[in-house]
Amino acid sequence: MGSCGTSCGQTVYSCLFEYDTPRIVLIKSRKVGLMNRLVQLAILAYVIGWVFVWQKGYQETDSVVSSVTTKVKGIALTNTSKLGLRIWDVADYVVPPQGENSVFIMTNMIITLNQTQGRCPELDKTTRCHSDADCEEGYTGIHSNGVQTGRCVVYDPANVTIKTCEVFAWCPVEDDDKVPQPAFLKAAENFTLLVKNNIWYPKFNFTKRNILPSINQTYLKNCTYHAETDPFCPIFRLGDMVEAAGQNFQEMAVEGGVMGLQINWKCDLDKPASRCVPKYTFRRIDNKDVAHTVSPGYNFRFAKYFRNADGVESRTLIKAYGIRFDIMVFGKAGKFNIIPTMINIGSGLALFGVATVLCDVIVLYFMKKKYYYREKKYKYVEDYELGVDKIYGSQSESPELRGDQ
Amino acid sequence: MGSCGTSCGQTVYSCLFEYDTPRIVLIKSRKVGLMNRLVQLAILAYVIGWVFVWQKGYQETDSVVSSVTTKVKGIALTNTSKLGLRIWDVADYVVPPQGENSVFIMTNMIITLNQTQGRCPELDKTTRCHSDADCEEGYTGIHSNGVQTGRCVVYDPANVTIKTCEVFAWCPVEDDDKVPQPAFLKAAENFTLLVKNNIWYPKFNFTKRNILPSINQTYLKNCTYHAETDPFCPIFRLGDMVEAAGQNFQEMAVEGGVMGLQINWKCDLDKPASRCVPKYTFRRIDNKDVAHTVSPGYNFRFAKYFRNADGVESRTLIKAYGIRFDIMVFGKAGKFNIIPTMINIGSGLALFGVATVLCDVIVLYFMKKKYYYREKKYKYVEDYELGVDKIYGSQSESPELRGDQ
Amino acid sequence: MGSCGTSCGQTVYSCLFEYDTPRIVLIKSRKVGLMNRLVQLAILAYVIGWVFVWQKGYQETDSVVSSVTTKVKGIALTNTSKLGLRIWDVADYVVPPQGENSVFIMTNMIITLNQTQGRCPELDKTTRCHSDADCEEGYTGIHSNGVQTGRCVVYDPANVTIKTCEVFAWCPVEDDDKVPQPAFLKAAENFTLLVKNNIWYPKFNFTKRNILPSINQTYLKNCTYHAETDPFCPIFRLGDMVEAAGQNFQEMAVEGGVMGLQINWKCDLDKPASRCVPKYTFRRIDNKDVAHTVSPGYNFRFAKYFRNADGVESRTLIKAYGIRFDIMVFGKAGKFNIIPTMINIGSGLALFGVATVLCDVIVLYFMKKKYYYREKKYKYVEDYELGVDKIYGSQSESPELRGDQ
Repeated sequence: MGSCGTSCGQTVYSCLFEYDTPRIVLIKSRKVGLMNRLVQLAILAYVIGWVFVWQKGYQETDSVVSSVTTKVKGIALTNTSKLGLRIWDVADYVVPPQGENSVFIMTNMIITLNQTQGRCPELDKTTRCHSDADCEEGYTGIHSNGVQTGRCVVYDPANVTIKTCEVFAWCPVEDDDKVPQPAFLKAAENFTLLVKNNIWYPKFNFTKRNILPSINQTYLKNCTYHAETDPFCPIFRLGDMVEAAGQNFQEMAVEGGVMGLQINWKCDLDKPASRCVPKYTFRRIDNKDVAHTVSPGYNFRFAKYFRNADGVESRTLIKAYGIRFDIMVFGKAGKFNIIPTMINIGSGLALFGVATVLCDVIVLYFMKKKYYYREKKYKYVEDYELGVDKIYGSQSESPELRGDQ
Repeated sequence: MGSCGTSCGQTVYSCLFEYDTPRIVLIKSRKVGLMNRLVQLAILAYVIGWVFVWQKGYQETDSVVSSVTTKVKGIALTNTSKLGLRIWDVADYVVPPQGENSVFIMTNMIITLNQTQGRCPELDKTTRCHSDADCEEGYTGIHSNGVQTGRCVVYDPANVTIKTCEVFAWCPVEDDDKVPQPAFLKAAENFTLLVKNNIWYPKFNFTKRNILPSINQTYLKNCTYHAETDPFCPIFRLGDMVEAAGQNFQEMAVEGGVMGLQINWKCDLDKPASRCVPKYTFRRIDNKDVAHTVSPGYNFRFAKYFRNADGVESRTLIKAYGIRFDIMVFGKAGKFNIIPTMINIGSGLALFGVATVLCDVIVLYFMKKKYYYREKKYKYVEDYELGVDKIYGSQSESPELRGDQ
Repeated sequence: MGSCGTSCGQTVYSCLFEYDTPRIVLIKSRKVGLMNRLVQLAILAYVIGWVFVWQKGYQETDSVVSSVTTKVKGIALTNTSKLGLRIWDVADYVVPPQGENSVFIMTNMIITLNQTQGRCPELDKTTRCHSDADCEEGYTGIHSNGVQTGRCVVYDPANVTIKTCEVFAWCPVEDDDKVPQPAFLKAAENFTLLVKNNIWYPKFNFTKRNILPSINQTYLKNCTYHAETDPFCPIFRLGDMVEAAGQNFQEMAVEGGVMGLQINWKCDLDKPASRCVPKYTFRRIDNKDVAHTVSPGYNFRFAKYFRNADGVESRTLIKAYGIRFDIMVFGKAGKFNIIPTMINIGSGLALFGVATVLCDVIVLYFMKKKYYYREKKYKYVEDYELGVDKIYGSQSESPELRGDQ
């Protein structure tokens, strides 16, 4: 650089102190002028209206990080021949006692009391047999309750003609053929679910919780969420939630299901923080199409283990049907940021070029005076060494070539 | 195409072998030249400095996928009149025994021993009564422990004047009025939490775990995380975590709470993989604002079921207060990719046009010699059919029209 | 605006009815023309081929929201001296009975029966002692099972020379030195896992579940997933999954581990919904590198609590080793949207400018006739007040200055 002499200095000088701007043809034409402005207006409207105002293209966005805790309240009284009069409270019907973003509330069950390890006849439907030859010692089917011992025994003492293979299993084996109808804990419809949700937008270091500052202890003790009257009460009646999802609670309670409690925290952080509030919606997540009856509902098995006085372990097996409420926290927060703004302005500017290209095409190819305009816009420079004249010599271009010079 | 003859061939020929470039006016002006360069420099600095260097606009990003397992260690000894001398280990105070991304450690509890299904007086605070008329058979309030039988009975044998409605419930009913203070398992402050975290960036097929290759078995057996001295030890003392979040452990232990253990895996995968390391931060997630005392803390109820010698089921109800540690794994990895690079270069180039537009405005509207420059930049073409002359005839434009030709 | 008179009106008029388009030099040169077209073609190919066709740059994308439920089937028979003949079913080996997106299947265990609160010798390996002086009352180490009482007692009645410190703990203390090998529940290899997965793309309001409409009840009862023959059967054999991840089930069963069942719902919603199907892949998540033996496997402790006839609480402590299956649901759906299309077209157009810039550099700096072309492209305008002539007077530029005028 230092040794390049005066010509170098002049280059730098001319680079710094010269300013180049494209030469423009200004065509005075109402038609094209108007069209050009209209196309530009459309692009401007799109860029400003759609990208910036509607889609908030000037904002950087962040996804929500959330923490959810739940608490169920409610008790149910049942009266059956098997269990007698019995009360069910939270510790009984919420299994497991706490989850991360979901809570399961048992609404129906098939209970098998006093199971112990031993030998007993397999279920009727699974393995009918006539003699020991029909049973294979050590065999376990995919739907078996235990391992076959190889013997064929009477299934029901009241009807000695029905025999099934004997199995080594937790005896007596569970018979889950008939789901109680109506649901065992149908009173669950009136239970309430308190949802505490803290959210965080890490990029903007913005935190908020769904128990808004305007909510006080008294209100919280007695309110129930209602879309119109109490949209910010974080206590939900189970029946209301299922209904809001367009489902029937008592139907759903029988075979169980999965409900989504969606909390939407869509926030525009360019506005005051107090306008960033949760919006609750409800949706049934499993099995949307009624036509689809394959593997419906939601259930799982769990057991309570006991030890008898003589040290033998027994258990109560419960096949629990119920509704799992998945609390799904959504949300995007947006805040002004220079990068997306610039990207959108940049591509918006580039789109402006489209207007010129479009009008050029019309002016140069479709208008009556296209040759006149071409002559004005273009300056033809011949690469005389290639003898272009030979090809273009007799064309209309040649007058144009001279026209601009 | 094939039948378009010579004029067609010429169009294709001219399309292929002609090169069009805009005609430029080079204005030799120190002021405008310098300004133009400065604006361009600013845009270049922005594009290169901010978009590329700082925001790494040339990188494609991917979000982390993670798997977390945890293990708690520590034992506590308590001595109360109700339970006597008692030791608490992991199987006792971690409920449920495992979670997906969170672990709950019980620090306080209200324990109700030997509950059985039956009739007993409801809690004092809930339903005072004078006679059976005050109690409604079958009534269940939102905060009831059971279903009212319709009788009004003596609540406390020591004071026969206080009567409450009798309920059918798990008896005796839980009295959760007074939370033990200090926390029952205050020794939990010294418990440790081992976090094993495997992460995966699917787009880049990059996996890593938080037990770094440099960590050996001996170190892992004895280390405890410390932000400065042991930033990569994955074993955390509960007290340290709560303190790092600016909270007091013993206070938090009383009513419970939710802590976030945040693992940040922000990685620049254009650099060596060994520089992709986790960064731990701690945050209290629930109830950030002290002013906010509505529904503080974190607790839930669970029960242990027993069967007495005579077959009657009883349970121990525990209202567990404690700290839930949510392990939140964050992170974005970036790696060079052509698409975002091109998008950013493209919009950067488009921004360059801004410099020209800006300088044009100054040159053509604000400089003394604006008419001179306009004359050089623009060539006016009249759409003679529209009789533009009638309007512009006496204007300064008309000399300019001739000026360029 | 209203008071700006005729000059104002003229400006608006000329603004509306004038159309400006850049003036172009058309250089007839085969070399440069061809190069220009090639560069433009490359850019066009990139924009159309890569950005639009391959990366689907015209689509708006959305991330999947999913809900997972699982059900395990299978029974195992074990025969040990400690427990005798015993059957294990779902309620026994799935702990906890349900999770949100993961399911844990116990494959191995260290079981400690009949623990009660009391005093007993600490484990051999932890605290050998010779006399009471070696033991510190109240001391608890990080790996202790209880609190030391300060006494030194015989550890093994069969060998009175080995003494350890006495502790107050759940007695007898667990000895987890030797993990059963082969795994206790090695039959778990044949267990099956049914995964029900409902997904949702909120932006497009598109839902689907992994039990496809084409699957009927009969098929579902008997099928097992196989990558080639049954790619849409949602029932997975545990052994198959582990094998598909390149692991050995029996090895993994001993110390446990974490498996990822990844469901990929990559969907192009511009195509029919029926082509949006899940794709299952399997991966071992923990401990990828074999060289890495620090803290392998996956285990946790839980207890079953009993009450003896005399009211004393006892428990069965189980250190459960097993495989946790994390169901990870991925996916991005894309659908045509105008915003990303415009951003990509915009930056594509801007890139077209690159072709012109590139060719300009060649034409103006590297070609023989560069001065001739420069003369055609540029019009030099002197800012005569600055006396540019003094500097450029004797340069080759001066003839060019005149050349265009």
